[in-house]
Amino acid sequence: MAEKDDDEIIEHHVCEEMEKKTNRNLDSHSFLESVTPSEKEGSSSTQSSHRLLAYSDALISIIATVMILPVSHTQIEPDKELQESLQRVLAAKIAVYLTTFLIVTVAWSAHVRLFQVIERIDDFLALLNLACMMLITFLPYTFSLMVTFQQDSFGILLFCCCAIVIGLIQAVIVVYGFDRPHLLNGQIQISENQTFYKYHILKIILRVPVFCFLAGIFSFIYTPLSYVLLGVVIFLPYITHPLKWCWAKAVGHQEEQPNGMMFYSYHPNEPLSKERIESFSDGVYAIVATLLILDICEDNVPDPSKVREEFEGNLIAALSVYGPEFLAYFGSFVTVGLLWFVHHSLFLHITKTTRLMGLLNTFSLAFIGGLPLAYQLTHEFPKNSLNELEAIQISCVIIFFAGIFQLAIWVTALFSEKETLHVYVRYGGKEHAFMFAKLALYPCVTLTTFFLTCILRRFSAQIFHLMEIIVPFAFLALRIVVRIVLALLKLVFCPSKSVHNADDDTRLPFNRVLS
Amino acid sequence: MAEKDDDEIIEHHVCEEMEKKTNRNLDSHSFLESVTPSEKEGSSSTQSSHRLLAYSDALISIIATVMILPVSHTQIEPDKELQESLQRVLAAKIAVYLTTFLIVTVAWSAHVRLFQVIERIDDFLALLNLACMMLITFLPYTFSLMVTFQQDSFGILLFCCCAIVIGLIQAVIVVYGFDRPHLLNGQIQISENQTFYKYHILKIILRVPVFCFLAGIFSFIYTPLSYVLLGVVIFLPYITHPLKWCWAKAVGHQEEQPNGMMFYSYHPNEPLSKERIESFSDGVYAIVATLLILDICEDNVPDPSKVREEFEGNLIAALSVYGPEFLAYFGSFVTVGLLWFVHHSLFLHITKTTRLMGLLNTFSLAFIGGLPLAYQLTHEFPKNSLNELEAIQISCVIIFFAGIFQLAIWVTALFSEKETLHVYVRYGGKEHAFMFAKLALYPCVTLTTFFLTCILRRFSAQIFHLMEIIVPFAFLALRIVVRIVLALLKLVFCPSKSVHNADDDTRLPFNRVLS
Repeated sequence: MAEKDDDEIIEHHVCEEMEKKTNRNLDSHSFLESVTPSEKEGSSSTQSSHRLLAYSDALISIIATVMILPVSHTQIEPDKELQESLQRVLAAKIAVYLTTFLIVTVAWSAHVRLFQVIERIDDFLALLNLACMMLITFLPYTFSLMVTFQQDSFGILLFCCCAIVIGLIQAVIVVYGFDRPHLLNGQIQISENQTFYKYHILKIILRVPVFCFLAGIFSFIYTPLSYVLLGVVIFLPYITHPLKWCWAKAVGHQEEQPNGMMFYSYHPNEPLSKERIESFSDGVYAIVATLLILDICEDNVPDPSKVREEFEGNLIAALSVYGPEFLAYFGSFVTVGLLWFVHHSLFLHITKTTRLMGLLNTFSLAFIGGLPLAYQLTHEFPKNSLNELEAIQISCVIIFFAGIFQLAIWVTALFSEKETLHVYVRYGGKEHAFMFAKLALYPCVTLTTFFLTCILRRFSAQIFHLMEIIVPFAFLALRIVVRIVLALLKLVFCPSKSVHNADDDTRLPFNRVLS
Repeated sequence: MAEKDDDEIIEHHVCEEMEKKTNRNLDSHSFLESVTPSEKEGSSSTQSSHRLLAYSDALISIIATVMILPVSHTQIEPDKELQESLQRVLAAKIAVYLTTFLIVTVAWSAHVRLFQVIERIDDFLALLNLACMMLITFLPYTFSLMVTFQQDSFGILLFCCCAIVIGLIQAVIVVYGFDRPHLLNGQIQISENQTFYKYHILKIILRVPVFCFLAGIFSFIYTPLSYVLLGVVIFLPYITHPLKWCWAKAVGHQEEQPNGMMFYSYHPNEPLSKERIESFSDGVYAIVATLLILDICEDNVPDPSKVREEFEGNLIAALSVYGPEFLAYFGSFVTVGLLWFVHHSLFLHITKTTRLMGLLNTFSLAFIGGLPLAYQLTHEFPKNSLNELEAIQISCVIIFFAGIFQLAIWVTALFSEKETLHVYVRYGGKEHAFMFAKLALYPCVTLTTFFLTCILRRFSAQIFHLMEIIVPFAFLALRIVVRIVLALLKLVFCPSKSVHNADDDTRLPFNRVLS
């Protein structure tokens, strides 16, 4: 009887521990996680922040990609050379798109960090966050005002105002969160240095409003200086760590951070919520994949009267005019879909994501945002024109870079594979080879296509379309191909070993081949 | 020593159990969930479907709301009466929007059901799902062709082709899944009736392609019949159960379904993944909230040369022309954000969602999709015109219905509260009263505004703007107000009880008041 009780107690204890673990690590939707009774008299009931963050990610991913719309709606006259029109009309808009994307992702990563510290929310924080979101969605517009009217200080003022208010709201969230410790991250909750954390985080968050305030003031006096200040604000998180490192090397001064400072450390290995990187990326991929169908649904339904007059009521003939648009849509949907598929496979194997990986992911996403535009261009010009060739090559370059940055995430993960990768996928295994093949497929194919179109200019369109058709099947056949290649490698390099336990032993020969 | 071993075994055993539980219920991102070694020779490694579904939800939510764009971009000339232009230009487009929304959500709920059966995926299924997604994103376009060219059978043919291919892909997914039982839902995996399930599900899924095939054939012979067939396909899931019920009552015939048939039963209480309803709703809310800023970013950056000529370089004066657009943006963002907030609070309290709740949620979302348009209209007309009044009243009606359907979800949940609601929020408690107040706030406020604008026509715009400003603060103050009201109710109805343990005892008096 006593033994049974003991077991029960142990069981209970272990279950409790498991439950705690579950709650902390897995972001589950269990009862305990979603709502716990309020721990303080008078405070409203706390909730899991999971859905609030998913909604914020969706909003921010839409806003990050919005500035591609003015780019893709730029009318390019087919009689001009593409290069010329690109240089004149598009270059500025593309620059705006890329910079907005960067700025919004900086805002996003600040948001991610904030809610890594504040892990639970209540109604007040949810409403504050919505206000913050509204201001973030307004950033792209202020930025495009800034670019269009470079002489006028109003754009920069508006931008600074938004950034200041966003910073202040985040500061309020931090103060509110530290006042109610049950909202905080578990690690900080049990930490002795809570006050230190609070001031450290506040110091970093308030840096942005202060710099923006200065930039706003300088915009009246000397505008270039305020641009410099804004640039510093945006890139500060990325240069702080190298600067500190240099400073420490030069002066020999050691930092006084408490051990295990995991948040707001600006170390490239600082963890960045994997779940949020995934949901932000999903949002961007989903919007980019559907960008062209949005245009098609709005603009490419022919006018009934026109169909009657010009095509004698033949709807199919009228629609065939839009053929290139549909092709572009399917091409871009398939490419974005497959790049998402690679991204999805990649993040299945990663256990922990760092700031550096987040940054590489941002670069990959920025290129993907430009994809629909590039695909649209490939079909807008007369066949075999120089324009068409260039549009195809631009598409290849964009896909290449999107793929290369995905590969870079993988390489970064490999550098600290013990922390960031699942066991079975580490360097040298079969799964590793398969993942590597998946990641390398698009860069290799587009590079080949690029050089082929350089050599065989006449058949560039055919080569490109062939590439579009082959790639999905290549992904389907990839696992088999990798298996065959590994078996061949094994036969060549270790012919002594038996073949039939190929699954377990591929690790060794593959390692040997590579080293 | 032996004792220690025992403990360890127990611990191990319990942990395993916990882990299983975690894996099955919580859709966690643990190692075991995300990738397990392949259970069959030759099959590729299986993965958690979590992210695939999130991506699909994002895609479908974008597509569901896309047809609002042609509506919102319809130019309404301010000198015409709104009602007239509404009737002529908008009515058709709004009908297209609503029907597309319905069709896409039907496709979405078929997708949800499918992946409630297939719980784990591999690369092949991921790629098949992407193909399925591509076809779903194409549905709105085929539908708008159908509506624009009602006499031409091409639109309906295209629609049928898409639906047939989608159905066939889903059938392939089901066959593939049942061939590899480790991909299936746990309940089906251990069920003895696996073959029955397989054919039951296939039968239901293949119904759609068969009906669409017939509709396609009839489109050549007698078009109205094919519309009827398509209508049957779309509404069949919703009328099957009532029909069967009637049939059973009339004939007295009993069904031969095995016990616990939880999937594809067409019962209104059939569970529909709560997580997916949430992520689909998040997608719709996020797109609707940003619809207006997309337009603003693209169209409302003034032309520098125009600013120089017309406004003498005064940017602020040039921007003030767009004032109404900005106001509309902020108004719609705040309203959509707060409706999301209510939705978020509502689904925090719900533990299990049913098909009926999903349907009500769809209706609520369909109204929310029209919100930005309504807000845009409120600012497009001259002040105190009849148009402005009507636009304001339309906005009120839209918000009212969006709120009412949210309330309906809550009421539906209350009917089977033991299964669908958390304990602490059930009928009669303080949390219940608070939730009810949250849900009732928007319907009450908009109803009041509607009637006030009917009476005080002159001040309609002021009343509306006042409403916009008050509501966010009302949400902030709601908890306090509910507390006071409950305390008052208690004082009035049970003055004998002491007040200071109000938190525990509010359940009783409130019940008494209501009954």
